[in-house]
Amino acid sequence: MLPESHRIEKDFLGEKQVPLDAYYGIQTMRSVENFPITGYRIHERLICALAMVKEAAAKANRETGRLKPEIGAAIEQAAGEIRAGRFHDQFVVDPIQGGAGTSINMNANEVLANRAIELLGGVKGDYTRVSPNTHVNMSQSTNDCFPTASQIAILGLMEDLLSEMESMSAVFHAKAEEFDAVIKMGRTHLQDAVPIRLGQEFGAYARVLSRDIGRIARAREHLLTINMGATAVGTGLNADPRYIERVVEALGKISGLPLRLAEHMPDATQNTDRFTELSAALKICMLNMSKICNDLRLMASGPSSGFGEIHLPPRQPGSSIMPGKINPVMCEVINQVAFQVFGNDLTICLASEAGQLELNVMEPVLVFNLLQSLDIMKNAFGVFKTHCLEGITANEERCSNHVNSSTGLITALNPYIGYETSSRIVKEAINSGKTVRELLLAHHLIDQKQLETILDPYRMTSPGIAGERKTE
Amino acid sequence: MLPESHRIEKDFLGEKQVPLDAYYGIQTMRSVENFPITGYRIHERLICALAMVKEAAAKANRETGRLKPEIGAAIEQAAGEIRAGRFHDQFVVDPIQGGAGTSINMNANEVLANRAIELLGGVKGDYTRVSPNTHVNMSQSTNDCFPTASQIAILGLMEDLLSEMESMSAVFHAKAEEFDAVIKMGRTHLQDAVPIRLGQEFGAYARVLSRDIGRIARAREHLLTINMGATAVGTGLNADPRYIERVVEALGKISGLPLRLAEHMPDATQNTDRFTELSAALKICMLNMSKICNDLRLMASGPSSGFGEIHLPPRQPGSSIMPGKINPVMCEVINQVAFQVFGNDLTICLASEAGQLELNVMEPVLVFNLLQSLDIMKNAFGVFKTHCLEGITANEERCSNHVNSSTGLITALNPYIGYETSSRIVKEAINSGKTVRELLLAHHLIDQKQLETILDPYRMTSPGIAGERKTE
Amino acid sequence: MLPESHRIEKDFLGEKQVPLDAYYGIQTMRSVENFPITGYRIHERLICALAMVKEAAAKANRETGRLKPEIGAAIEQAAGEIRAGRFHDQFVVDPIQGGAGTSINMNANEVLANRAIELLGGVKGDYTRVSPNTHVNMSQSTNDCFPTASQIAILGLMEDLLSEMESMSAVFHAKAEEFDAVIKMGRTHLQDAVPIRLGQEFGAYARVLSRDIGRIARAREHLLTINMGATAVGTGLNADPRYIERVVEALGKISGLPLRLAEHMPDATQNTDRFTELSAALKICMLNMSKICNDLRLMASGPSSGFGEIHLPPRQPGSSIMPGKINPVMCEVINQVAFQVFGNDLTICLASEAGQLELNVMEPVLVFNLLQSLDIMKNAFGVFKTHCLEGITANEERCSNHVNSSTGLITALNPYIGYETSSRIVKEAINSGKTVRELLLAHHLIDQKQLETILDPYRMTSPGIAGERKTE
Amino acid sequence: MLPESHRIEKDFLGEKQVPLDAYYGIQTMRSVENFPITGYRIHERLICALAMVKEAAAKANRETGRLKPEIGAAIEQAAGEIRAGRFHDQFVVDPIQGGAGTSINMNANEVLANRAIELLGGVKGDYTRVSPNTHVNMSQSTNDCFPTASQIAILGLMEDLLSEMESMSAVFHAKAEEFDAVIKMGRTHLQDAVPIRLGQEFGAYARVLSRDIGRIARAREHLLTINMGATAVGTGLNADPRYIERVVEALGKISGLPLRLAEHMPDATQNTDRFTELSAALKICMLNMSKICNDLRLMASGPSSGFGEIHLPPRQPGSSIMPGKINPVMCEVINQVAFQVFGNDLTICLASEAGQLELNVMEPVLVFNLLQSLDIMKNAFGVFKTHCLEGITANEERCSNHVNSSTGLITALNPYIGYETSSRIVKEAINSGKTVRELLLAHHLIDQKQLETILDPYRMTSPGIAGERKTE
Repeated sequence: MLPESHRIEKDFLGEKQVPLDAYYGIQTMRSVENFPITGYRIHERLICALAMVKEAAAKANRETGRLKPEIGAAIEQAAGEIRAGRFHDQFVVDPIQGGAGTSINMNANEVLANRAIELLGGVKGDYTRVSPNTHVNMSQSTNDCFPTASQIAILGLMEDLLSEMESMSAVFHAKAEEFDAVIKMGRTHLQDAVPIRLGQEFGAYARVLSRDIGRIARAREHLLTINMGATAVGTGLNADPRYIERVVEALGKISGLPLRLAEHMPDATQNTDRFTELSAALKICMLNMSKICNDLRLMASGPSSGFGEIHLPPRQPGSSIMPGKINPVMCEVINQVAFQVFGNDLTICLASEAGQLELNVMEPVLVFNLLQSLDIMKNAFGVFKTHCLEGITANEERCSNHVNSSTGLITALNPYIGYETSSRIVKEAINSGKTVRELLLAHHLIDQKQLETILDPYRMTSPGIAGERKTE
Repeated sequence: MLPESHRIEKDFLGEKQVPLDAYYGIQTMRSVENFPITGYRIHERLICALAMVKEAAAKANRETGRLKPEIGAAIEQAAGEIRAGRFHDQFVVDPIQGGAGTSINMNANEVLANRAIELLGGVKGDYTRVSPNTHVNMSQSTNDCFPTASQIAILGLMEDLLSEMESMSAVFHAKAEEFDAVIKMGRTHLQDAVPIRLGQEFGAYARVLSRDIGRIARAREHLLTINMGATAVGTGLNADPRYIERVVEALGKISGLPLRLAEHMPDATQNTDRFTELSAALKICMLNMSKICNDLRLMASGPSSGFGEIHLPPRQPGSSIMPGKINPVMCEVINQVAFQVFGNDLTICLASEAGQLELNVMEPVLVFNLLQSLDIMKNAFGVFKTHCLEGITANEERCSNHVNSSTGLITALNPYIGYETSSRIVKEAINSGKTVRELLLAHHLIDQKQLETILDPYRMTSPGIAGERKTE
Repeated sequence: MLPESHRIEKDFLGEKQVPLDAYYGIQTMRSVENFPITGYRIHERLICALAMVKEAAAKANRETGRLKPEIGAAIEQAAGEIRAGRFHDQFVVDPIQGGAGTSINMNANEVLANRAIELLGGVKGDYTRVSPNTHVNMSQSTNDCFPTASQIAILGLMEDLLSEMESMSAVFHAKAEEFDAVIKMGRTHLQDAVPIRLGQEFGAYARVLSRDIGRIARAREHLLTINMGATAVGTGLNADPRYIERVVEALGKISGLPLRLAEHMPDATQNTDRFTELSAALKICMLNMSKICNDLRLMASGPSSGFGEIHLPPRQPGSSIMPGKINPVMCEVINQVAFQVFGNDLTICLASEAGQLELNVMEPVLVFNLLQSLDIMKNAFGVFKTHCLEGITANEERCSNHVNSSTGLITALNPYIGYETSSRIVKEAINSGKTVRELLLAHHLIDQKQLETILDPYRMTSPGIAGERKTE
Repeated sequence: MLPESHRIEKDFLGEKQVPLDAYYGIQTMRSVENFPITGYRIHERLICALAMVKEAAAKANRETGRLKPEIGAAIEQAAGEIRAGRFHDQFVVDPIQGGAGTSINMNANEVLANRAIELLGGVKGDYTRVSPNTHVNMSQSTNDCFPTASQIAILGLMEDLLSEMESMSAVFHAKAEEFDAVIKMGRTHLQDAVPIRLGQEFGAYARVLSRDIGRIARAREHLLTINMGATAVGTGLNADPRYIERVVEALGKISGLPLRLAEHMPDATQNTDRFTELSAALKICMLNMSKICNDLRLMASGPSSGFGEIHLPPRQPGSSIMPGKINPVMCEVINQVAFQVFGNDLTICLASEAGQLELNVMEPVLVFNLLQSLDIMKNAFGVFKTHCLEGITANEERCSNHVNSSTGLITALNPYIGYETSSRIVKEAINSGKTVRELLLAHHLIDQKQLETILDPYRMTSPGIAGERKTE
């Protein structure tokens, strides 16, 4: 017996009870039953992007005369409401779902149909007025709607991320200038090498980040290519060519993105390289950011028994047991986000490789992970920049002490006394505890004045033979 | 100016406003500000496990006389409430967080302290009555509490998962029996090979799944070893040996798990192999499940132009555009969960490798992914079993037709006419369109009666020379 | 006691016996002792590229007056000999080696020094004439030589690979044309969907491959940027600015590559994103190629009880036991190469992330894997194209039968009878064994003539409402 | 025209010229033409293991009367020769090959057949005397021979690896004892925490390694289960049950391994979890070893501006430009081997997941990577132990200085003055440059005598409240 609070809906597999006030319908109900996997919600941006797709399609279908104007108008109004943030609680399917996105597409179709019915004065569930499949999904298939909506959601998040990265990059550049005069020991293999300026290190970070921005931005190109009108397998069956032209144009306007129709629709429908390309760029960015944060953690190690070259702003008590302890937590969270993004990239790649013939049915898990990577990178970069990077200061005294006590300075003597002699001096220095400076003079290998010129650490940090006039 | 709705809390880094009604305090506030990364909540099981740890610690500290009985009792009562599901909304830190779990540990300490204060008739924020660090965290460090709580949460989810797997395994075994008489073409390289019984295939699935159960169960061993009392670096500083003994005993009772104290605490504090070992077992299980589901999707391919050997229960309309289309969605979601678990495993491994010296500070992202893997596997197996596996039926006619039209049957003739002659017959069969049976007779290679005995497909599916008496 | 067949060499760590006829010296000996890891040889291209670097450096050092002309000339001649393929057996260090490539750099330095000594009439091991460090390695460090040489080797292999890919792409395009009229069932979820042309499928393959070519080619940009003159940490200590200018110019000439000096040398010395960027492009290419080969294996499945839509050229007997069996071995090897390249990419990413401060000491394993990926892709694509792709033929009859017996055709009726009615017809068709064509007529849903126009499979494979005049 | 140096061989696909002196035949020729992928050779252990399989099969076939005694004897003798190291140059197929190992199996069959023919006085290529398929491969299929041989090769390498690990573990344990009295700062988050003994750190390394040995050893169980007699798809077609029993017994004797027949042959033929299980154990071991080596590199960082707590034995000059520089090369090579093993594990997992129905055709790349992982781990552990681990010494003075200058000691005061007061002291210490000891006394928080008892670093490294009598 049907409870009062429910209505009955039917599809070709049978009937189901749907809560009376639900905007979703029977297919959404089936999906909820089938896929209680992660318990997470569909990303808000994806919900809005789906609404954009449905709005553009309704408009195009109206214009080609296939969709009655009043039905089209109702769908478009409903879509606009969703884009404005309404009815998001009606999107109840799980982001990880079998079926290549049919569930989320039908969830959108049902919500839009029922809201349109309501706007037209009908009763939810009366699909004779507005049908999720026949009207809302007209000229469409999950296989064009879902990837297109995903790309729109992704492109939006990419803008936010890139903007955050530009801002972070500017701080790295500013820090490079701020620290330009701070001489410290350069290290290779974690062993003292030759002097470098702290500003040069931050300059290196700024530059790799600039390339990352470029790589991510470049991934936009293929993501702007959409396959609306491809319908089921890319052949465009049931999609009027005039509709195709118009839906792309309308969607471009609604989304504000310079979207382009794919030249070869079966290609755009079955291949997912536009996603893996972006994910690879994100992963590479995080490889670099993880390396940078490892460096910062090393340089900030201490305070007493570590490198102690820089200070990171204290953000929270570092220990529930050790009083006064401060940890590099903002760097650590970047490392963890990096690991998450690497894992996500693997998932994305596996999903991509699993495409078969005309379609990649693994797109839901692919899109879920890609949206997450974009989100957490943007979020993490924002707090890292504000709460850590901007407040980094140099411990100039420690840096200077390191340089002065190092045997690595002797490298500058190579052109004067040869690699082999230098090596012997270093060995003696380490064994005797004397400085290389003392030993060089004691062995009369070089005179005091020349030594001072050659062993000027600042000059060692730009190209040239130490002690010679630089040709700059 | 302090809004009326807030109180001021202090730590050694300064002050912060905390909502008056919040059970969490200043350190939780800092964490929320520092780590707005995923937007997800801490896993409910982890919250409960933390409460168990705190309860056991309070009990042990009471027993050694370090914690005043009334304070201990209040903390224990508060912890019991959390375990019963209360105050979970007060756990507001992000699962991905810098600081090795200090934030979630302090979130728990603060909620428990404030609730205990409340129970003792005090005002939230008055930590002179019950201090998050001095009382709730007494004898503890994040570095023993967080991994211990994580292990308890994991062990609980493992039980659920293993129980689901046992149940799914039983269905595979039942299907193996049900399909024992269904002869079909075995395939290698997706090419027709020699006959096999569908029941043998399901038997193979059942068996690999049994090994997976074994592998996952075996990972329990190391996860039952905890490091309570290790405090900061595993040396046990500030942890009374009597406390250590009692906290492990108390925690075992509260959790119902046969927990053991680690023999070497620095080892247990810095190493994370007990987590990677479980994650590896989960990943291997999903490699196998993904292969099984790929097989099922292949066997169910069609309905017309595919293999068509089995039917999967229809679960939802498969397409928003193609009427009547049914897709293997329950298998597809297993594939996607597999990809997610593989990605999670990579994240977990990277986090594990990134441990340094006395601690692995990447544990938050590690634990987040491990809990997710356990969750989604359990969830996915449940619906896969119920909505797909149990309802699989065989298309016996199609299976039989495949066998009868295959050239692969000739393999059984090898012992009679040799591999080389057989090869020529197959080539002729493919070129002429005749069956190998016809050709064998036409070339007088074997007589009719012998042929029937040798080419009995059922007998081909167990060891022996076809046409000879089996020595069974 | 020194055997007659050996000489003694010294460095600051002590002495070692070196075979008298060896061109390598003590440091190579130490490396061989330290790193007997894989047993593989250094890639020939890398040996040649190192020789190019050393030749260019000698030339530049001669021109700045730091290296005596006769020593420089001898080194350059020796380098030329190595580039011509001589002395490769003297490169005996393992590709996986600790020390950021110092071992392979010193192996090259020693071989060149000893060969130069020989050319100058000296005795091998007499480094007073030509010193591996002082002369051959003058103005250089492993940290600029090794990445630069690696990039040159990689760029060379990239050209070969891209050329192979262009050639393979052309065949995919040709096949797309050849199969343009072959109508077959399109499949989504491995389930019959709507018709598509086999040529459209090959067109999709051709197009994704074109994008892969673009992605790989684009990775050249950053790989052409080298850091010669960076010396130890990127500051250019001991590298005369005139030398830097000239070595880049000379190396460009010798290698024939438009090499550019990095703008920021510490960046170029510590970051490895130019390698991960290429590896990502290679991996994405293999994700796509693996998907393509999976498709081909599916389409070629059978011969009897599979899809049977295409024939792959037989390349070798497929079974040691099943006579006449042919397997899609050329596709399978592409899949395996894909898996190898994915694994290599992970190794490369891990090595990249492990860089610390001024240097990435994990470059040897990174470069080893990247060279291998390039090699095996080139090799595999060559044989795949020649031995498989070019010879693929369509089984048009089978393709046509599939289309005609499919219920998926009904999708074209949606605009006429609606999705819901269509769904019911499909269900009835599957249950009754009747075709949708029969049922549509029996239920008087559409008349015979209209049906023929709508159900024309060829017209279904391009955009539009089936049965309407296409607006092409 | 046939050159004099060649013979003609035929199979059902046609003819090929084979070098007259080659022991391999036409199918090997085809494979060489089809798969010029890596250029590497088949692993020697795999060649020997294949010979064992063929010898055991010949023996079992002789005993069941199917194989003529003189042919069997000749095959067995030939196999013995291969096991003794002869004819390995005749194994010319590539380790990465399409076809599930058919090529390597046929390479073995052909070499054995031709050698047997030769032993019987025949002419190579005259397969009427001994046929590669009919005689050498009798009762077998690639699908049982290849995995069985792979398992035997793997089990052999595992013994070597485990033995090397036991030996390395013993050194870690010895070092733990040697360094038991060396007090140093423990670090969490790379920040000074509380004291620990260097011996405790090495003890932690020793213990995780012991668990790794256990995990790897446990993977033997499933690898000892073989599928000889499964033939093509696991049904045992053409394999006499008496043969199956005897071949397993014979192979156990020849290999010296306690091999068992699989209970369910289709399972053992299609599933590859016995390989992924081992690979996971190897990967986890390398995660741990990589962490250990990262720790050692950190502790050895310096010599001047790093942690400087331990010395690693110098193994080779560390730089071609920086005189006297020594790098932790033996640790770095372990890190690189770790990355290689992680990459290999990914390849292995992908290959495993790609199995379809009755067979996993990706086994060649899987086995190639697994053998490599075993090899390089064994090799790397050997040199790491000898050239690095055994010679590690502690810099006790530096360790002691670190402890004495640290603010972390104050943690021991928590039970006396509370976490909050302690935190304030630490902050003041860092700001003022005074020691916590000084400040504690200056603020009269504790008296001198009590302070000495509490701040005894050695006592801080075992459980208990510092300053109280330990209850040990």
